[in-house]
Amino acid sequence: MGKIILTGDRPTGRLHVGHYVGSLKRRVELQNSGQFDEIYIMIADAQALTDNADNPEKVRQNIIEVALDYLACGLDPAKSTLFIQSQIPELCEMTFYYMDLVTVSRLQRNPTVKSEIQMRNFETSIPVGFFTYPISQAADITAFKATTVPVGEDQAPMIEQTREIVHKFNTVYGGNLVEPDILLPDNKACLRLPGIDGKAKMSKSLGNCIYLSDSEEEIQKKIMSMYTDPNHLRVQDPGQVEGNPVFIYLDAFCTDAHFEEYLPEYQNLDELKAHYMRGGLGDVKVKKFLNNVIQEELRPIRERRREIAKDIPAVYKILEEGSIRAEKKAAETLAEMKRAMKINYFEDKELIAEQAARFKSESEG
Amino acid sequence: MGKIILTGDRPTGRLHVGHYVGSLKRRVELQNSGQFDEIYIMIADAQALTDNADNPEKVRQNIIEVALDYLACGLDPAKSTLFIQSQIPELCEMTFYYMDLVTVSRLQRNPTVKSEIQMRNFETSIPVGFFTYPISQAADITAFKATTVPVGEDQAPMIEQTREIVHKFNTVYGGNLVEPDILLPDNKACLRLPGIDGKAKMSKSLGNCIYLSDSEEEIQKKIMSMYTDPNHLRVQDPGQVEGNPVFIYLDAFCTDAHFEEYLPEYQNLDELKAHYMRGGLGDVKVKKFLNNVIQEELRPIRERRREIAKDIPAVYKILEEGSIRAEKKAAETLAEMKRAMKINYFEDKELIAEQAARFKSESEG
Repeated sequence: MGKIILTGDRPTGRLHVGHYVGSLKRRVELQNSGQFDEIYIMIADAQALTDNADNPEKVRQNIIEVALDYLACGLDPAKSTLFIQSQIPELCEMTFYYMDLVTVSRLQRNPTVKSEIQMRNFETSIPVGFFTYPISQAADITAFKATTVPVGEDQAPMIEQTREIVHKFNTVYGGNLVEPDILLPDNKACLRLPGIDGKAKMSKSLGNCIYLSDSEEEIQKKIMSMYTDPNHLRVQDPGQVEGNPVFIYLDAFCTDAHFEEYLPEYQNLDELKAHYMRGGLGDVKVKKFLNNVIQEELRPIRERRREIAKDIPAVYKILEEGSIRAEKKAAETLAEMKRAMKINYFEDKELIAEQAARFKSESEG
Repeated sequence: MGKIILTGDRPTGRLHVGHYVGSLKRRVELQNSGQFDEIYIMIADAQALTDNADNPEKVRQNIIEVALDYLACGLDPAKSTLFIQSQIPELCEMTFYYMDLVTVSRLQRNPTVKSEIQMRNFETSIPVGFFTYPISQAADITAFKATTVPVGEDQAPMIEQTREIVHKFNTVYGGNLVEPDILLPDNKACLRLPGIDGKAKMSKSLGNCIYLSDSEEEIQKKIMSMYTDPNHLRVQDPGQVEGNPVFIYLDAFCTDAHFEEYLPEYQNLDELKAHYMRGGLGDVKVKKFLNNVIQEELRPIRERRREIAKDIPAVYKILEEGSIRAEKKAAETLAEMKRAMKINYFEDKELIAEQAARFKSESEG
């Protein structure tokens, strides 16, 4: 059995450096590692609709943004199947049957669902589609027989839910579904970037994100206005690096080579941090360095993005071809599932022959 | 717009006189009335799996039984589209999107779901698929643009749920879905037959049903053993007809013509009831009359059933052809829905042109 990746993003906005550091960069590395036989990258529009049902236009407009971000970062349609979730109807059918294998109380206990419900202030008015999205995710993962799901630790309960469904399906129906493994990020520091305002999460509505598609000027402006240590008032004051977004971003992005290039008076980030902590290092200097580092990383992405965006129909073509490929695979898995469930009546010659014989003997008996 | 019927049954057992009196007989009359442009009769195997996920064989074996009962009762594939729910994948897709338009608390308030959960002793271990089946039913009804759903009063909350979903979908997406109307049985007495043991509900597990496919001897044996008024001990005692299954069955089945034929000493059921109530009429005599009445009704059905069962592959052929026809209609509706939701990206030339223009002007601007 091959090694297969399934992962993706909800198209509710352009992707930002949080996505890049948390998953996108790694995804490209995994793609190029040659260690995986199949890679499926899903633009999860149907999942985005579960809590954006009354704003389908937002989802619709952001599919292309996410696709551009993907291609600009180096996801390669020759190596990875990029597809749009809603174009794979088999996923809905699998979700439908998996729903019979999970209890309502099991969903209610899912910590990811719990916290997402809280985050969205849904309380009792949770849309059913949102409440059940761990089941839909199980369909996404299993449809492609994914062995490997590269996600953050916060998504571990979702993978666990998928494993339970697979186990139940295989037990009840004698199926052959694959239990996926979670692939956690290798660098704990990279798990999640805070917003530039210091808030724990980057969010479009808070306006605290640096987008992959931001211009050089936008990025510079955002970095120079970043939240740092609020007690670091004068240059000579000792500053704190822990919880300081500027240093968290440096943790995620900078290498020793960056110091050589942009800030040769320090060998590495440890030296810079030490100076900041003992006092005498101003925020502006650190931010300028961070700006240089991030610009270097994002410039080629932005430029590729601009190139690719010159031919939007070609990007849709990539998504369409990916969706066709993805559907083919999902249809194979679904057909196997239906054979296991024995709901493939019309192709089931045995069932028909058995029943014909039974009715014949009853009528003669 | 034409008048369209959607109705059906879960294939969890052969159909019994309760089904016949409660819906099947009426359904055949509606079919033959010429008042409906399209009639869809669904064998709801996918719905049956929502609370039989671990016993798919029961569902699988009973599809043919229900189909035979349908055809034997006079449902005519030339007039009605008989199909199997699971063979219409579009229903799962519609269910998926409708789930975004209904809240969890709304489902919890559904009185039909509440009472069915209670009946099945599910409590907190309700399968998600069972909990959400009102949404799945909305898909079944709307996929065929049904205007008319002939069901019992107990199903009214389900139709109401469908109407709400249709309203929400049309409001949010500017869709064109049809709000269905419930068509209640015209004879209140026929709403529900009790079991032959006097229990309120006929159920396979209680063994208290008279099946449409029962032999003459089985029917006679069941009727002669029927529960009656427990205080009617001696022939001369006054008896009660209210709540007395034998009389409820007579209410449902017998006509004045039956008296002329089998019990000419009475003109009609009122006279028979009056005699029973004042005393002097034995249960055996009434049961023998009921047996004559029911045998007369069920004999031609049973005989047709036996004839039809001689060619089981032909019955599957009918279901297959019906499923193809049903899927065609559902696919049309789903395509309309997707256009309304604007998730038909690849065929949406406008979207692609708009976005191409936007990126062009951004890159030039």
